[in-house]
Amino acid sequence: MGGFFTGRTLADLGRDLRSGDASAAGLLAHALESVDPELNAFVTLDHEGAEAAAEHADKELASGVGRGPLHGVPVAVKDIIDVAGLPTGMGSAHFDGHVAETDAACVTLLRNAGAVIVGKTGTHEFAYGGSGDVSVNGPVRNPHDRERMSGGSSSGSAVAVAAGMVPLALGTDTGGSVRIPAAFCGIAGFKPPYGVIPTGGVFPLSPSLDHVGVLAGSADDCRIAYHALTGLAEAVPPPADESVRTGRVAWIEPEAADPEVVRTVRALFPDAPAEPLDLFELRRIFRAIQDCEAYEIHAERVAEAPERYQPLTLERLEQASRTLGWRYIRAFRERDEFAGQVAGLLDRYDLLALPTMMMTAPPIGETEGPFGRWAPALVSLTCAWNVLGLPALSVPAGTVGGLPVGAQFVTRRGGESLLFDAAGRLAALTG
Amino acid sequence: MGGFFTGRTLADLGRDLRSGDASAAGLLAHALESVDPELNAFVTLDHEGAEAAAEHADKELASGVGRGPLHGVPVAVKDIIDVAGLPTGMGSAHFDGHVAETDAACVTLLRNAGAVIVGKTGTHEFAYGGSGDVSVNGPVRNPHDRERMSGGSSSGSAVAVAAGMVPLALGTDTGGSVRIPAAFCGIAGFKPPYGVIPTGGVFPLSPSLDHVGVLAGSADDCRIAYHALTGLAEAVPPPADESVRTGRVAWIEPEAADPEVVRTVRALFPDAPAEPLDLFELRRIFRAIQDCEAYEIHAERVAEAPERYQPLTLERLEQASRTLGWRYIRAFRERDEFAGQVAGLLDRYDLLALPTMMMTAPPIGETEGPFGRWAPALVSLTCAWNVLGLPALSVPAGTVGGLPVGAQFVTRRGGESLLFDAAGRLAALTG
Repeated sequence: MGGFFTGRTLADLGRDLRSGDASAAGLLAHALESVDPELNAFVTLDHEGAEAAAEHADKELASGVGRGPLHGVPVAVKDIIDVAGLPTGMGSAHFDGHVAETDAACVTLLRNAGAVIVGKTGTHEFAYGGSGDVSVNGPVRNPHDRERMSGGSSSGSAVAVAAGMVPLALGTDTGGSVRIPAAFCGIAGFKPPYGVIPTGGVFPLSPSLDHVGVLAGSADDCRIAYHALTGLAEAVPPPADESVRTGRVAWIEPEAADPEVVRTVRALFPDAPAEPLDLFELRRIFRAIQDCEAYEIHAERVAEAPERYQPLTLERLEQASRTLGWRYIRAFRERDEFAGQVAGLLDRYDLLALPTMMMTAPPIGETEGPFGRWAPALVSLTCAWNVLGLPALSVPAGTVGGLPVGAQFVTRRGGESLLFDAAGRLAALTG
Repeated sequence: MGGFFTGRTLADLGRDLRSGDASAAGLLAHALESVDPELNAFVTLDHEGAEAAAEHADKELASGVGRGPLHGVPVAVKDIIDVAGLPTGMGSAHFDGHVAETDAACVTLLRNAGAVIVGKTGTHEFAYGGSGDVSVNGPVRNPHDRERMSGGSSSGSAVAVAAGMVPLALGTDTGGSVRIPAAFCGIAGFKPPYGVIPTGGVFPLSPSLDHVGVLAGSADDCRIAYHALTGLAEAVPPPADESVRTGRVAWIEPEAADPEVVRTVRALFPDAPAEPLDLFELRRIFRAIQDCEAYEIHAERVAEAPERYQPLTLERLEQASRTLGWRYIRAFRERDEFAGQVAGLLDRYDLLALPTMMMTAPPIGETEGPFGRWAPALVSLTCAWNVLGLPALSVPAGTVGGLPVGAQFVTRRGGESLLFDAAGRLAALTG
């Protein structure tokens, strides 16, 4: 677990970089030394490019050019996001040898913020799954138990942060793919509102649901990275009354979940009133949208070279191909109804809280468990917020059986600081 | 054929109304007298409401209130468009006894323009077909040959105008439903660019393709009605050079069509260069979009009371239900590609010209002909412009075997006056 960046915050690193106690080149060296190949977090390490970027960052820092809190900080990027000159492998044999020509928009934002891109991290094949063990690159392993799933699809990004190889990583999240591995690996993962971080240059899974997000050791570091990337000023929550400042939290009770996981997270919000929300209906809506959009993107590959997919990916795509068109359209109509219901909730509360996952990380290679097939079960509590395009944050919330558990906060679009503030209070509470 | 309004233009009527040679009440009486029940154009005549509206219009006109060229003019409205207090029957047993509570937005525009709504006109069931002979109200008959289809789905609106019962009617057009019956019945029919006339209060067929349009004796009356309804100022085409003023026309050759029909329309544009455009691909795109959207709207009715549909409508809906979701999404991607191709054409030309229909009106009740099933064949040359959302106008272009043939003009969004100007030149040419 103990890579160099374990326990070091972006604030710590920034202080050291500015005081001269650390250099970007030095931090990069620590990152590279911290890589544990057995965990399989990285699929590409860009020694040369990263060293040049670190050298450049050090020169800028020395000459007084300040690019903000990510300046000189080593960052990892999920392998469905294009970084110019590096392979983008998508975790798939289909993209063997494929090299990106230009940076994805989110990578441009990262570079503008002065970050040093260390390399590309393993992804569940085509980001189409939450387990992280289905990839031409093999399973990414959970640092808390190497025989267990990292979660996915931003598997390597979560593990690179959780094992202290980097302090920050970019991921993508279509049904939970930032928050799921964050929860399983005991770190923080943040999915902004739909559309805030541009998805250009990111291989699509389901364009109506795709988000770019960040993974870091703490919610506070997610907040710093989010603001550094987007240039969004810190939103100040309306100081209307005490309840707003303390955060009015509603608890969303999962219908089926590991009771120990639920109890652990629920204990953090003893006073939050429970509000009903049909997360299973929202998952059905998610599924109809993702099925149709994902298959549309893969149709030619499935027809022409089905054998290049991992078997589970192919099976899921073939199933997805059969979803009817009117069900897709109906899903958006139903989404609008849920959007109205949740907007009503978010008029009365600042935050919704629930576990990120129904369970702790299952064993690598398992396709079914107590909640049925893992593929749908893994997104049960996360995908609703992709359907609704709302900002959602997963933060560490203790352990069950020695494995990390995540608490998930959701709020209205534009209310991101409420999430980070609440997570800060929670961190103070839980230590 | 010879109802009162045959050969009378909106300009004629306006002149007579303003000079006192005619009154709105008198025109309404002429409209009601001109109704030929055998043609089955109207499903509802609103004697009382229309008389009150005519009386009000006459009072306004007498007191110097002028609402423009539709003031005091009798107009018919397709029976999928809500008129407050009147039944909206959709041509279907499903809506037996259903009375609209409020006016559709386009009806509000009509009333604001001072028009007198005479009644509701027969529609192909749920506007889901181009033949006009599938309806709980029975077939609407073509005034040129009563054993032949009127065309649809705005069947009654076209026949009411073609037989001189009214000078103007509202229709809707999802794949050609204004232009098809206009062409078959020898009148003008105009479909504006997508979204220009609001569709609120109109029963949807396929929301991505649905347009409200107008039917009248001439293109000029369509123009007058369009501007009166929308309040759009007459767009002045850029006077850049002579070619723009005379209209640069490209000919789009239909791949399969009655050669006599093609020859008749082509003869009007002897100098127009032929440009390729895959109208059959565009029809496939149309079909994928309409199938999914139409079935989504009807799914519960099909499940709960299939027997209330006309057999052909039910058969088409059941077929539509099976279109796959990814095909729906792909259709929009393909649409974007065609939009680029046609935008390129409309950079080089002001207008595209082609026949409105592949054939003249088939016999009532026939479901198949020389071009296969009538349902797809009827929209072959019209539906492309719904897919692309471009303004399209059908105008009379002679006869083949004694039956009317229509010429269709298409232009870029905002170029509507180019259409009307070209139709004016054509009318001068053909008499």
